[in-house]
Amino acid sequence: MPYGKNNKQLSKKSVIYGRNPVLELLKAGKRSISKIVLSQTARGTVISEIINLAKRRGIVIHNVSPKKLDNFSKDSQGIVAEVSFVKYANVGDLIKKAKKSPNPVLVILDGIEDPHNLGAIIRNCVAFGADGVIIPKRRAVGINETVVKSSAGSVEHISVSQVANVNQTINLLKKNGFWIGAGVKSDRYVNEKINFHFPMAIIIGSEGFGIHNLTKKNCDFFISIPQKNTISSLNASCASAIILYEISKGLV
Amino acid sequence: MPYGKNNKQLSKKSVIYGRNPVLELLKAGKRSISKIVLSQTARGTVISEIINLAKRRGIVIHNVSPKKLDNFSKDSQGIVAEVSFVKYANVGDLIKKAKKSPNPVLVILDGIEDPHNLGAIIRNCVAFGADGVIIPKRRAVGINETVVKSSAGSVEHISVSQVANVNQTINLLKKNGFWIGAGVKSDRYVNEKINFHFPMAIIIGSEGFGIHNLTKKNCDFFISIPQKNTISSLNASCASAIILYEISKGLV
Repeated sequence: MPYGKNNKQLSKKSVIYGRNPVLELLKAGKRSISKIVLSQTARGTVISEIINLAKRRGIVIHNVSPKKLDNFSKDSQGIVAEVSFVKYANVGDLIKKAKKSPNPVLVILDGIEDPHNLGAIIRNCVAFGADGVIIPKRRAVGINETVVKSSAGSVEHISVSQVANVNQTINLLKKNGFWIGAGVKSDRYVNEKINFHFPMAIIIGSEGFGIHNLTKKNCDFFISIPQKNTISSLNASCASAIILYEISKGLV
Repeated sequence: MPYGKNNKQLSKKSVIYGRNPVLELLKAGKRSISKIVLSQTARGTVISEIINLAKRRGIVIHNVSPKKLDNFSKDSQGIVAEVSFVKYANVGDLIKKAKKSPNPVLVILDGIEDPHNLGAIIRNCVAFGADGVIIPKRRAVGINETVVKSSAGSVEHISVSQVANVNQTINLLKKNGFWIGAGVKSDRYVNEKINFHFPMAIIIGSEGFGIHNLTKKNCDFFISIPQKNTISSLNASCASAIILYEISKGLV
């Protein structure tokens, strides 16, 4: 999905649906919520928590018939929040902020096109404590509703930057003392030998094409993912889960 | 998606689309392929390999206009294969076969409803050398085209059983000397202490509800997935990637 087209569809306002995504949105408190639309039949502890948080923040709640929300999306789980769109962080600020972390870990996505994958990768980044995500402006999906939903609301808890040129950003990261890494298919376990206590940016390749050659040449180290069976590679989000897990484990 | 409904749509014949899925289908050679439909403009090494394999196996190739395949699916990548549907393995046979493996590892999916997740999990199972997959008949997605596509053709390389009752199957596995395990969110790394050299069946919980309580009680051991940030759990396919990676690593 070209970024420009995608961006246009989601011009000023956007919606977040699903119980946990809306709850995380409220908890994070980073984005302006214009209203919450709630099904009259929605019940449960998560819904109660959402209502309490929304009331505390003075957010208007509209009660509507379940059918109305079903028409909007079958996946709404009876709740939709209308929000201003995710603000991308400036990449310079993102790097500056990451450098203050005791073990800076940034994640660079080299052309992820599937919003479900992008959402799942962001979810992994948050779960394993990455300090930020860098995505290219072109030939990659941006943050849209599907991404927010797939991230289970995690996107609210991490800074995301969009950059025009990934390789220029890699050079900027190198100047800032970051080492550039990537995961590779391998038949050997070599990760035990890596001391992960240095600032790093990890590149995750796209679903179809992996990591571009030029980008690969820019890498300082590789994290091996030994597969017993190499008939196919791992899905990008599953590969990122293992890489970030391995790094997070190495930082204990 | 209820299994019954899903099953009906895909009664006798089914289609596999996309270059790598069709190539893997041919390479595995397990399923009867009635014909291959190819776009007149499709080119490349994968397409050549498919044509060679198909010719060797005497499979008819129909050349059609690109538009015809676009109408069928935007994701076809210029190629569609019509096949008989995936045959589920008998669970008794699956266990019997797994027991012959030097380190038997089976994966039980406790109600995965998203076909993309099921496909990605099966892909992980193949990549990390699991011996088979067990899925419930009800309240879970079965093997359909989306699953085959998301698995990048991996589903051709592993046996899948459908069972009426997961807990009965767990008892059957226990009687056959299998230990039952599951992944859990944790703040500690305890996996180093586990010697994974015993027959095991690993339960992966569903996206929404995790592992059912009764099923959890049946577990003999847990594999910890320490998250730095526990605001949300991992996606089911990403969690399965880490668990299977950890086991595969422990078996070296």
